[in-house]
Amino acid sequence: MNGYFITFEGVEGAGKTTILQDIHGKLESLGYDVVSTREPGGIEIAEQIRHVILNTNNTKMEERTEALLYAAARRQHLVEKVIPALEQGKVILCDRFIDSSLAYQGYARGLGMDEVFAINQFAIKDQMPNLTILFDLEPKKGLSRIASNKDRERNRLDLETISFHEKVYKGYQILLDKFPNRIQSVNADQPLEQVGKEVLNKILLYIKK
Amino acid sequence: MNGYFITFEGVEGAGKTTILQDIHGKLESLGYDVVSTREPGGIEIAEQIRHVILNTNNTKMEERTEALLYAAARRQHLVEKVIPALEQGKVILCDRFIDSSLAYQGYARGLGMDEVFAINQFAIKDQMPNLTILFDLEPKKGLSRIASNKDRERNRLDLETISFHEKVYKGYQILLDKFPNRIQSVNADQPLEQVGKEVLNKILLYIKK
Repeated sequence: MNGYFITFEGVEGAGKTTILQDIHGKLESLGYDVVSTREPGGIEIAEQIRHVILNTNNTKMEERTEALLYAAARRQHLVEKVIPALEQGKVILCDRFIDSSLAYQGYARGLGMDEVFAINQFAIKDQMPNLTILFDLEPKKGLSRIASNKDRERNRLDLETISFHEKVYKGYQILLDKFPNRIQSVNADQPLEQVGKEVLNKILLYIKK
Repeated sequence: MNGYFITFEGVEGAGKTTILQDIHGKLESLGYDVVSTREPGGIEIAEQIRHVILNTNNTKMEERTEALLYAAARRQHLVEKVIPALEQGKVILCDRFIDSSLAYQGYARGLGMDEVFAINQFAIKDQMPNLTILFDLEPKKGLSRIASNKDRERNRLDLETISFHEKVYKGYQILLDKFPNRIQSVNADQPLEQVGKEVLNKILLYIKK
Protein backbone atom coordinates (compact mmCIF):
# COMPACT_ATOMS: atom_id res chain seq x y z
CA MET A 1 0.00 0.00 0.00
CA ASN A 2 1.47 3.31 -1.06
CA GLY A 3 -1.10 5.69 0.38
CA TYR A 4 -1.35 7.37 3.78
CA PHE A 5 -4.19 6.76 6.20
CA ILE A 6 -4.49 9.79 8.47
CA THR A 7 -7.17 10.12 11.14
CA PHE A 8 -8.41 13.18 13.04
CA GLU A 9 -9.45 12.72 16.64
CA GLY A 10 -10.51 14.77 19.64
CA VAL A 11 -13.39 15.93 21.80
CA GLU A 12 -16.48 17.63 20.36
CA GLY A 13 -15.96 21.16 19.11
CA ALA A 14 -12.19 20.86 18.75
CA GLY A 15 -12.26 21.96 15.09
CA LYS A 16 -11.45 18.61 13.44
CA THR A 17 -14.07 18.72 10.71
CA THR A 18 -13.43 22.31 9.63
CA ILE A 19 -9.68 21.83 9.54
CA LEU A 20 -9.96 18.51 7.72
CA GLN A 21 -11.76 20.26 4.84
CA ASP A 22 -9.13 23.00 4.78
CA ILE A 23 -6.23 20.53 4.77
CA HIS A 24 -7.89 18.55 1.98
CA GLY A 25 -7.78 21.61 -0.29
CA LYS A 26 -4.22 22.50 0.68
CA LEU A 27 -2.89 19.00 0.09
CA GLU A 28 -4.61 18.90 -3.31
CA SER A 29 -3.08 22.20 -4.29
CA LEU A 30 0.30 20.67 -3.40
CA GLY A 31 -0.43 17.90 -5.88
CA TYR A 32 -1.57 15.10 -3.56
CA ASP A 33 -4.50 12.85 -4.44
CA VAL A 34 -6.73 13.20 -1.37
CA VAL A 35 -9.85 11.40 -0.12
CA SER A 36 -11.77 12.87 2.82
CA THR A 37 -14.11 10.56 4.63
CA ARG A 38 -15.82 9.74 7.90
CA GLU A 39 -17.68 6.64 8.98
CA PRO A 40 -20.05 5.38 7.63
CA GLY A 41 -18.74 7.22 4.56
CA GLY A 42 -21.66 6.65 2.22
CA ILE A 43 -21.06 2.88 2.21
CA GLU A 44 -24.53 1.37 1.86
CA ILE A 45 -24.03 -1.49 4.37
CA ALA A 46 -22.36 0.81 6.89
CA GLU A 47 -25.22 3.31 6.48
CA GLN A 48 -27.72 0.54 7.26
CA ILE A 49 -25.76 -0.38 10.40
CA ARG A 50 -25.58 3.28 11.42
CA HIS A 51 -29.34 3.50 10.96
CA VAL A 52 -29.78 0.69 13.51
CA ILE A 53 -27.43 2.45 15.95
CA LEU A 54 -29.13 5.82 15.66
CA ASN A 55 -32.76 4.65 15.38
CA THR A 56 -34.44 6.59 18.18
CA ASN A 57 -36.84 3.70 18.81
CA ASN A 58 -33.92 1.49 19.83
CA THR A 59 -33.91 2.65 23.43
CA LYS A 60 -33.01 -0.86 24.61
CA MET A 61 -29.73 -0.85 22.68
CA GLU A 62 -27.11 -2.28 25.03
CA GLU A 63 -23.61 -0.73 25.14
CA ARG A 64 -21.81 -3.83 23.91
CA THR A 65 -24.28 -4.28 21.06
CA GLU A 66 -23.57 -0.68 20.07
CA ALA A 67 -19.79 -1.16 20.23
CA LEU A 68 -20.02 -4.27 18.01
CA LEU A 69 -22.21 -2.41 15.51
CA TYR A 70 -19.70 0.45 15.31
CA ALA A 71 -16.93 -2.09 14.71
CA ALA A 72 -19.01 -3.77 11.97
CA ALA A 73 -19.67 -0.46 10.20
CA ARG A 74 -15.98 0.42 10.54
CA ARG A 75 -14.94 -2.84 8.89
CA GLN A 76 -17.18 -2.30 5.90
CA HIS A 77 -16.13 1.34 5.42
CA LEU A 78 -12.47 0.32 5.69
CA VAL A 79 -12.79 -2.49 3.15
CA GLU A 80 -14.92 -0.64 0.63
CA LYS A 81 -13.44 2.85 0.82
CA VAL A 82 -10.20 3.25 2.78
CA ILE A 83 -8.19 0.24 1.61
CA PRO A 84 -8.95 0.74 -2.11
CA ALA A 85 -7.86 4.39 -1.81
CA LEU A 86 -4.68 3.34 0.02
CA GLU A 87 -3.91 0.87 -2.71
CA GLN A 88 -4.22 3.69 -5.22
CA GLY A 89 -1.62 5.66 -3.29
CA LYS A 90 -4.01 8.34 -2.07
CA VAL A 91 -3.88 10.39 1.13
CA ILE A 92 -6.98 9.51 3.17
CA LEU A 93 -8.14 12.01 5.77
CA CYS A 94 -10.66 10.31 8.05
CA ASP A 95 -12.73 12.20 10.63
CA ARG A 96 -12.63 9.84 13.64
CA PHE A 97 -11.69 6.15 13.58
CA ILE A 98 -10.66 3.47 16.11
CA ASP A 99 -9.44 5.93 18.76
CA SER A 100 -12.93 7.40 19.05
CA SER A 101 -14.29 3.98 20.02
CA LEU A 102 -11.47 3.52 22.51
CA ALA A 103 -11.95 6.94 24.11
CA TYR A 104 -15.76 7.14 24.02
CA GLN A 105 -16.89 3.55 24.50
CA GLY A 106 -13.81 1.91 25.96
CA TYR A 107 -12.89 4.62 28.46
CA ALA A 108 -15.78 7.08 28.94
CA ARG A 109 -18.55 4.47 28.85
CA GLY A 110 -16.41 2.08 30.88
CA LEU A 111 -16.43 -0.95 28.59
CA GLY A 112 -12.65 -1.14 28.88
CA MET A 113 -10.15 0.10 26.32
CA ASP A 114 -8.47 -3.28 25.88
CA GLU A 115 -11.77 -5.02 25.28
CA VAL A 116 -12.96 -2.44 22.77
CA PHE A 117 -9.53 -2.56 21.14
CA ALA A 118 -9.86 -6.34 20.72
CA ILE A 119 -13.11 -6.20 18.75
CA ASN A 120 -11.77 -3.33 16.68
CA GLN A 121 -8.63 -5.27 15.94
CA PHE A 122 -10.85 -8.00 14.56
CA ALA A 123 -12.52 -5.31 12.43
CA ILE A 124 -9.43 -3.57 11.08
CA LYS A 125 -6.76 -6.30 11.34
CA ASP A 126 -3.41 -4.56 10.92
CA GLN A 127 -4.88 -1.53 9.20
CA MET A 128 -4.18 1.00 11.92
CA PRO A 129 -3.91 4.64 10.82
CA ASN A 130 -0.42 5.68 9.73
CA LEU A 131 -0.80 8.97 11.55
CA THR A 132 -3.42 10.32 13.96
CA ILE A 133 -3.81 14.00 14.74
CA LEU A 134 -5.23 14.55 18.21
CA PHE A 135 -6.88 17.96 18.60
CA ASP A 136 -6.10 18.80 22.21
CA LEU A 137 -8.74 21.04 23.75
CA GLU A 138 -10.40 21.18 27.15
CA PRO A 139 -13.87 19.69 26.75
CA LYS A 140 -15.66 22.68 28.26
CA LYS A 141 -14.06 24.96 25.68
CA GLY A 142 -15.13 22.64 22.86
CA LEU A 143 -18.67 22.49 24.18
CA SER A 144 -18.93 26.25 24.48
CA ARG A 145 -17.72 26.56 20.85
CA ILE A 146 -20.49 24.18 19.82
CA ALA A 147 -23.08 26.06 21.86
CA SER A 148 -22.24 29.33 20.12
CA ASN A 149 -22.37 27.78 16.63
CA LYS A 150 -26.04 27.72 15.71
CA ASP A 151 -25.45 26.09 12.30
CA ARG A 152 -23.95 22.94 13.76
CA GLU A 153 -26.16 19.88 13.79
CA ARG A 154 -26.67 18.52 17.31
CA ASN A 155 -26.05 14.84 17.91
CA ARG A 156 -26.58 12.45 20.80
CA LEU A 157 -23.10 13.01 22.19
CA ASP A 158 -23.65 16.75 22.51
CA LEU A 159 -26.32 15.90 25.06
CA GLU A 160 -23.93 14.03 27.36
CA THR A 161 -22.82 15.59 30.64
CA ILE A 162 -19.60 17.54 30.95
CA SER A 163 -18.14 14.77 33.10
CA PHE A 164 -18.64 12.33 30.21
CA HIS A 165 -16.67 14.63 27.91
CA GLU A 166 -13.96 15.00 30.57
CA LYS A 167 -13.63 11.22 30.55
CA VAL A 168 -13.36 11.19 26.77
CA TYR A 169 -10.54 13.75 27.06
CA LYS A 170 -8.78 11.58 29.61
CA GLY A 171 -9.23 8.57 27.33
CA TYR A 172 -7.46 10.38 24.51
CA GLN A 173 -4.59 11.30 26.84
CA ILE A 174 -4.18 7.63 27.71
CA LEU A 175 -4.10 6.76 24.01
CA LEU A 176 -1.47 9.44 23.42
CA ASP A 177 0.74 7.77 26.04
CA LYS A 178 0.07 4.35 24.56
CA PHE A 179 0.75 5.21 20.92
CA PRO A 180 3.33 8.00 21.06
CA ASN A 181 4.58 7.36 17.53
CA ARG A 182 1.26 7.17 15.76
CA ILE A 183 -0.67 9.87 17.62
CA GLN A 184 0.49 13.46 17.45
CA SER A 185 -1.16 16.08 19.58
CA VAL A 186 -1.89 19.60 18.39
CA ASN A 187 -2.92 22.45 20.69
CA ALA A 188 -6.44 23.20 19.45
CA ASP A 189 -6.91 26.12 21.85
CA GLN A 190 -5.60 28.58 19.27
CA PRO A 191 -7.16 30.42 16.32
CA LEU A 192 -8.30 27.86 13.69
CA GLU A 193 -5.82 29.18 11.14
CA GLN A 194 -2.90 28.49 13.44
CA VAL A 195 -4.20 25.02 14.34
CA GLY A 196 -4.64 24.25 10.64
CA LYS A 197 -1.07 25.33 9.92
CA GLU A 198 0.34 23.07 12.64
CA VAL A 199 -1.76 20.11 11.47
CA LEU A 200 -0.65 20.60 7.87
CA ASN A 201 2.98 20.74 8.96
CA LYS A 202 2.71 17.50 10.88
CA ILE A 203 1.05 15.78 7.94
CA LEU A 204 3.59 17.05 5.42
CA LEU A 205 6.46 16.07 7.68
CA TYR A 206 5.03 12.59 7.82
CA ILE A 207 4.16 12.00 4.17
CA LYS A 208 7.41 13.50 2.91
CA LYS A 209 9.46 11.05 4.98
CA MET B 1 -28.81 -17.09 38.24
CA ASN B 2 -30.88 -20.15 38.96
CA GLY B 3 -31.89 -21.16 35.43
CA TYR B 4 -30.21 -23.37 32.86
CA PHE B 5 -28.97 -22.13 29.52
CA ILE B 6 -28.90 -25.07 27.11
CA THR B 7 -27.91 -24.73 23.45
CA PHE B 8 -28.46 -27.08 20.52
CA GLU B 9 -25.76 -27.27 17.87
CA GLY B 10 -24.88 -29.26 14.77
CA VAL B 11 -24.78 -29.32 10.98
CA GLU B 12 -27.85 -28.60 8.85
CA GLY B 13 -30.50 -31.30 8.86
CA ALA B 14 -29.33 -32.94 12.10
CA GLY B 15 -32.77 -32.68 13.71
CA LYS B 16 -32.03 -29.92 16.25
CA THR B 17 -35.12 -27.82 15.68
CA THR B 18 -37.62 -30.68 15.69
CA ILE B 19 -36.16 -32.24 18.80
CA LEU B 20 -35.93 -28.91 20.59
CA GLN B 21 -39.71 -28.48 20.25
CA ASP B 22 -40.28 -32.02 21.47
CA ILE B 23 -38.00 -31.57 24.50
CA HIS B 24 -39.72 -28.28 25.35
CA GLY B 25 -43.04 -30.10 25.74
CA LYS B 26 -41.54 -32.98 27.71
CA LEU B 27 -39.71 -30.70 30.14
CA GLU B 28 -42.88 -28.69 30.70
CA SER B 29 -44.86 -31.84 31.42
CA LEU B 30 -42.19 -32.65 34.01
CA GLY B 31 -42.91 -29.31 35.66
CA TYR B 32 -40.05 -27.17 34.35
CA ASP B 33 -40.56 -23.60 33.26
CA VAL B 34 -39.14 -23.64 29.73
CA VAL B 35 -38.28 -20.94 27.16
CA SER B 36 -37.42 -21.99 23.61
CA THR B 37 -35.60 -19.48 21.48
CA ARG B 38 -33.22 -18.93 18.62
CA GLU B 39 -31.37 -15.81 17.52
CA PRO B 40 -32.59 -13.16 16.79
CA GLY B 41 -35.48 -14.38 18.94
CA GLY B 42 -38.01 -11.70 18.13
CA ILE B 43 -35.86 -9.00 19.75
CA GLU B 44 -36.53 -5.87 17.70
CA ILE B 45 -32.91 -4.61 17.59
CA ALA B 46 -31.58 -8.09 16.82
CA GLU B 47 -34.17 -8.45 14.05
CA GLN B 48 -32.99 -5.18 12.51
CA ILE B 49 -29.39 -6.42 12.59
CA ARG B 50 -30.44 -9.74 11.06
CA HIS B 51 -32.21 -7.81 8.32
CA VAL B 52 -28.91 -6.12 7.43
CA ILE B 53 -27.12 -9.50 7.40
CA LEU B 54 -29.70 -11.21 5.20
CA ASN B 55 -30.56 -8.30 2.88
CA THR B 56 -29.96 -9.80 -0.55
CA ASN B 57 -28.79 -6.44 -1.89
CA ASN B 58 -25.83 -6.51 0.49
CA THR B 59 -23.62 -8.54 -1.82
CA LYS B 60 -20.56 -6.55 -0.71
CA MET B 61 -20.95 -7.68 2.91
CA GLU B 62 -17.46 -8.63 4.08
CA GLU B 63 -16.96 -11.71 6.29
CA ARG B 64 -15.70 -9.83 9.32
CA THR B 65 -18.53 -7.32 9.08
CA GLU B 66 -20.93 -10.26 9.09
CA ALA B 67 -19.25 -11.89 12.11
CA LEU B 68 -19.44 -8.63 14.08
CA LEU B 69 -23.11 -8.20 13.18
CA TYR B 70 -23.91 -11.74 14.38
CA ALA B 71 -22.09 -10.99 17.63
CA ALA B 72 -24.06 -7.73 18.03
CA ALA B 73 -27.40 -9.48 17.48
CA ARG B 74 -26.31 -12.21 19.90
CA ARG B 75 -25.53 -9.66 22.59
CA GLN B 76 -28.93 -8.02 22.32
CA HIS B 77 -30.84 -11.32 22.31
CA LEU B 78 -28.84 -12.51 25.31
CA VAL B 79 -29.46 -9.33 27.31
CA GLU B 80 -33.12 -8.94 26.49
CA LYS B 81 -34.29 -12.54 26.46
CA VAL B 82 -31.86 -15.15 27.78
CA ILE B 83 -30.50 -13.45 30.90
CA PRO B 84 -33.94 -12.33 32.21
CA ALA B 85 -35.23 -15.91 31.79
CA LEU B 86 -32.16 -17.30 33.57
CA GLU B 87 -32.73 -14.89 36.43
CA GLN B 88 -36.27 -16.22 36.71
CA GLY B 89 -34.91 -19.75 37.07
CA LYS B 90 -36.16 -21.00 33.70
CA VAL B 91 -34.73 -23.66 31.43
CA ILE B 92 -33.74 -21.95 28.17
CA LEU B 93 -33.42 -24.10 25.07
CA CYS B 94 -31.62 -22.11 22.37
CA ASP B 95 -31.31 -23.31 18.78
CA ARG B 96 -27.69 -22.38 17.93
CA PHE B 97 -25.49 -19.93 19.81
CA ILE B 98 -21.76 -19.10 20.04
CA ASP B 99 -20.55 -22.51 18.79
CA SER B 100 -22.31 -21.93 15.47
CA SER B 101 -20.23 -18.78 14.91
CA LEU B 102 -17.07 -20.66 15.89
CA ALA B 103 -17.78 -23.62 13.58
CA TYR B 104 -19.26 -21.73 10.62
CA GLN B 105 -17.40 -18.45 10.56
CA GLY B 106 -14.35 -19.21 12.67
CA TYR B 107 -13.50 -22.58 11.18
CA ALA B 108 -15.41 -23.17 7.92
CA ARG B 109 -15.06 -19.60 6.61
CA GLY B 110 -11.49 -19.46 7.87
CA LEU B 111 -11.70 -16.33 10.05
CA GLY B 112 -10.06 -18.26 12.90
CA MET B 113 -11.84 -19.80 15.86
CA ASP B 114 -9.84 -17.85 18.44
CA GLU B 115 -10.53 -14.55 16.75
CA VAL B 116 -14.25 -15.21 16.40
CA PHE B 117 -14.28 -16.42 20.01
CA ALA B 118 -12.75 -13.11 21.12
CA ILE B 119 -15.48 -10.93 19.63
CA ASN B 120 -18.13 -13.29 20.94
CA GLN B 121 -16.60 -13.17 24.38
CA PHE B 122 -17.01 -9.41 24.25
CA ALA B 123 -20.66 -10.03 23.30
CA ILE B 124 -21.56 -12.64 25.91
CA LYS B 125 -19.00 -11.92 28.68
CA ASP B 126 -19.09 -14.95 30.99
CA GLN B 127 -22.52 -16.08 29.88
CA MET B 128 -21.48 -19.29 28.15
CA PRO B 129 -24.16 -21.99 27.84
CA ASN B 130 -24.36 -24.33 30.83
CA LEU B 131 -24.80 -27.29 28.53
CA THR B 132 -24.53 -27.71 24.77
CA ILE B 133 -25.99 -30.69 22.91
CA LEU B 134 -24.05 -31.41 19.73
CA PHE B 135 -26.09 -33.37 17.18
CA ASP B 136 -23.46 -35.54 15.56
CA LEU B 137 -24.34 -36.40 11.96
CA GLU B 138 -22.32 -36.66 8.77
CA PRO B 139 -23.07 -33.52 6.74
CA LYS B 140 -24.07 -35.40 3.61
CA LYS B 141 -26.74 -37.29 5.56
CA GLY B 142 -28.07 -34.05 6.98
CA LEU B 143 -28.19 -32.44 3.58
CA SER B 144 -30.03 -35.39 2.05
CA ARG B 145 -32.59 -35.17 4.88
CA ILE B 146 -33.11 -31.52 4.03
CA ALA B 147 -33.41 -32.23 0.32
CA SER B 148 -36.19 -34.76 0.92
CA ASN B 149 -38.11 -32.40 3.24
CA LYS B 150 -40.08 -30.14 0.93
CA ASP B 151 -41.66 -28.13 3.75
CA ARG B 152 -38.36 -26.86 5.06
CA GLU B 153 -37.47 -23.30 4.27
CA ARG B 154 -34.20 -23.02 2.36
CA ASN B 155 -31.59 -20.58 3.64
CA ARG B 156 -28.28 -19.26 2.35
CA LEU B 157 -26.29 -21.97 4.13
CA ASP B 158 -28.19 -24.75 2.39
CA LEU B 159 -26.69 -23.43 -0.83
CA GLU B 160 -23.10 -23.92 0.32
CA THR B 161 -20.98 -26.71 -1.10
CA ILE B 162 -20.65 -30.06 0.65
CA SER B 163 -17.00 -29.29 1.43
CA PHE B 164 -18.16 -26.21 3.38
CA HIS B 165 -20.48 -28.38 5.48
CA GLU B 166 -17.66 -30.90 6.01
CA LYS B 167 -15.58 -28.07 7.42
CA VAL B 168 -18.43 -27.05 9.73
CA TYR B 169 -18.57 -30.64 10.98
CA LYS B 170 -14.83 -30.63 11.60
CA GLY B 171 -15.18 -27.31 13.43
CA TYR B 172 -17.72 -28.83 15.80
CA GLN B 173 -15.39 -31.78 16.49
CA ILE B 174 -12.65 -29.33 17.44
CA LEU B 175 -15.06 -27.57 19.80
CA LEU B 176 -16.01 -30.90 21.36
CA ASP B 177 -12.34 -31.53 22.14
CA LYS B 178 -11.92 -28.00 23.47
CA PHE B 179 -15.00 -27.94 25.74
CA PRO B 180 -15.45 -31.58 26.83
CA ASN B 181 -17.43 -30.66 29.93
CA ARG B 182 -19.85 -28.22 28.39
CA ILE B 183 -20.49 -29.90 25.03
CA GLN B 184 -22.10 -33.33 24.94
CA SER B 185 -22.37 -35.19 21.67
CA VAL B 186 -25.40 -37.24 20.68
CA ASN B 187 -25.45 -39.66 17.74
CA ALA B 188 -28.02 -38.03 15.45
CA ASP B 189 -27.84 -40.82 12.88
CA GLN B 190 -30.69 -42.70 14.56
CA PRO B 191 -34.49 -42.44 14.40
CA LEU B 192 -35.59 -39.02 15.74
CA GLU B 193 -37.42 -40.61 18.67
CA GLN B 194 -34.24 -42.28 19.88
CA VAL B 195 -32.19 -39.13 19.44
CA GLY B 196 -34.81 -37.16 21.38
CA LYS B 197 -34.72 -39.69 24.21
CA GLU B 198 -30.94 -39.43 24.52
CA VAL B 199 -31.01 -35.63 24.42
CA LEU B 200 -33.69 -35.51 27.11
CA ASN B 201 -31.67 -37.88 29.30
CA LYS B 202 -28.56 -35.73 29.02
CA ILE B 203 -30.53 -32.60 29.88
CA LEU B 204 -32.29 -34.20 32.85
CA LEU B 205 -29.04 -35.61 34.15
CA TYR B 206 -27.59 -32.11 34.01
CA ILE B 207 -30.43 -30.09 35.53
CA LYS B 208 -31.08 -32.60 38.29
CA LYS B 209 -27.49 -32.37 39.50
